[in-house]
Amino acid sequence: MLTYIFMIAITAEAMSGALAAGRRNMDMFGVALIAFITALGGGTVRDVVLGNFPVTWTQHPSYIYLTIGAGLATMLVARFMKHLHQLFLIVDGMGLIAFTIIGCNVALNLDYDTPVVVMAGITTGIFGGILRDLMCNRTPQVLRHELYASISLLVALLYLCLLERGVDHDINLLASFSVGVGLRMVAIRWHLSLPVFTYALGSWDD
Amino acid sequence: MLTYIFMIAITAEAMSGALAAGRRNMDMFGVALIAFITALGGGTVRDVVLGNFPVTWTQHPSYIYLTIGAGLATMLVARFMKHLHQLFLIVDGMGLIAFTIIGCNVALNLDYDTPVVVMAGITTGIFGGILRDLMCNRTPQVLRHELYASISLLVALLYLCLLERGVDHDINLLASFSVGVGLRMVAIRWHLSLPVFTYALGSWDD
Amino acid sequence: MLTYIFMIAITAEAMSGALAAGRRNMDMFGVALIAFITALGGGTVRDVVLGNFPVTWTQHPSYIYLTIGAGLATMLVARFMKHLHQLFLIVDGMGLIAFTIIGCNVALNLDYDTPVVVMAGITTGIFGGILRDLMCNRTPQVLRHELYASISLLVALLYLCLLERGVDHDINLLASFSVGVGLRMVAIRWHLSLPVFTYALGSWDD
Repeated sequence: MLTYIFMIAITAEAMSGALAAGRRNMDMFGVALIAFITALGGGTVRDVVLGNFPVTWTQHPSYIYLTIGAGLATMLVARFMKHLHQLFLIVDGMGLIAFTIIGCNVALNLDYDTPVVVMAGITTGIFGGILRDLMCNRTPQVLRHELYASISLLVALLYLCLLERGVDHDINLLASFSVGVGLRMVAIRWHLSLPVFTYALGSWDD
Repeated sequence: MLTYIFMIAITAEAMSGALAAGRRNMDMFGVALIAFITALGGGTVRDVVLGNFPVTWTQHPSYIYLTIGAGLATMLVARFMKHLHQLFLIVDGMGLIAFTIIGCNVALNLDYDTPVVVMAGITTGIFGGILRDLMCNRTPQVLRHELYASISLLVALLYLCLLERGVDHDINLLASFSVGVGLRMVAIRWHLSLPVFTYALGSWDD
Repeated sequence: MLTYIFMIAITAEAMSGALAAGRRNMDMFGVALIAFITALGGGTVRDVVLGNFPVTWTQHPSYIYLTIGAGLATMLVARFMKHLHQLFLIVDGMGLIAFTIIGCNVALNLDYDTPVVVMAGITTGIFGGILRDLMCNRTPQVLRHELYASISLLVALLYLCLLERGVDHDINLLASFSVGVGLRMVAIRWHLSLPVFTYALGSWDD
């Protein structure tokens, strides 16, 4: 099941990357590249930092075609996407959770300590979006808007907690997934966000 | 021959990095660092993502001296470079093609699948320029202007196609190189570019 | 001793990251993440490029807690930090030197050539700050202000020089450290900087 959700998730992420590229008037190639990086960049950073070679997507050429195809298709359907806004946010939230759980499992299989496993989950969940925003020259949105990265953290902790307590893996997946997607929906609906830290420009380090 | 072109290419890339640093009023150290990253960053990203350790330039200290030297020299000759604009574009185009073919070969030697080989070629060709623009806080130019990244893709496909058909390697190199540099010259001369995707700021994800 | 300085240094770096995040109005999670990346990102880039797996911080969960804790604590004490400005600059300078020497040693232990060892030292010293600025969407400050990155280079050269001459390692550490921190203080006090390269926007590559 996680695999299907993953495929849907990288498609959604690729589309969000394509839209961001469109806001910067990039050409077709730029759209395809940003789509690819948004969808698979988080997992790439995770694999490289954990020393998990070969990097996952290099063993699954279908991921390359899927993300680039989704990016290019977005150029055609972008005008209709505002009407699909709600659906898009739900799929994006599912992707965040699926990415997080997959990232945790990669680090677990490599026998990393729990804090590193949590970092791996979060990295997989949010770094694609961060790379997308870096490539499009804007401050990472995932660190500023409604609860997003923090839900990735919560899900990673919940998943590892249930895992340690020996809860059946399917039930664990279902629980972590439902809680994560539910929280994300609640955060979007009621505009929940973390406290923001505002620090005015100092004279000594602008 | 590819080695000579590579040396010329990293020099040209280093100079383009130094000019970009100059536009941001960086100090000498910044100029040297951006020159180095522009010239060797694409290959570094490729090696790291493919798990190809040790990274190429760490085994060739001369590349470090060459790129840093070229960057610093650019500070002295920058005022004359506008007159060399045409030459610079040709050398830059040759670099793009040489980087692409070298990148493909690195991935081929590591037995990656064809789509990954193509990605490795493109990464080597364009990521130095992308890192340069990221470090200088601007949207990557290679994804917005005249055909550039897409020529890297075409050359990678042509090279692999001829390779698979068993064409003599020297002839393959010559053909891929000529077609690539030729296309790039044509693109610059007639301002050919890919369709641009423009997506206005949505209300839901600025 | 280097370990203690390292712990103090990553705390200082984490705080500088948190302040930069505050200038971009990031939420708590963003502050923690930028703090972490500023403190440990330089070492991560070094380890990944040198192929030094597992990456250092993944084996020391305490570094994760320390940097994230320092980042979050900065949210509370930020209002008082302007009064600690001088202290902060000194600790930051000590961090720069400690990071540089540690980075050199990592590359030395992996038997890299001297130029690569120097690059590893500099990368460890300055790349955390560069990543911080990239994530906060501004041009890297370390390449534009008072002597900073160049002091990292000088210290790396001095340290390796004394090492090669067989100077006692404790004396070497003390000498390199004093010279580095002293130079940094002098540079701040008298606003010493490297020559700046200013290149006006050309018509051909804006």
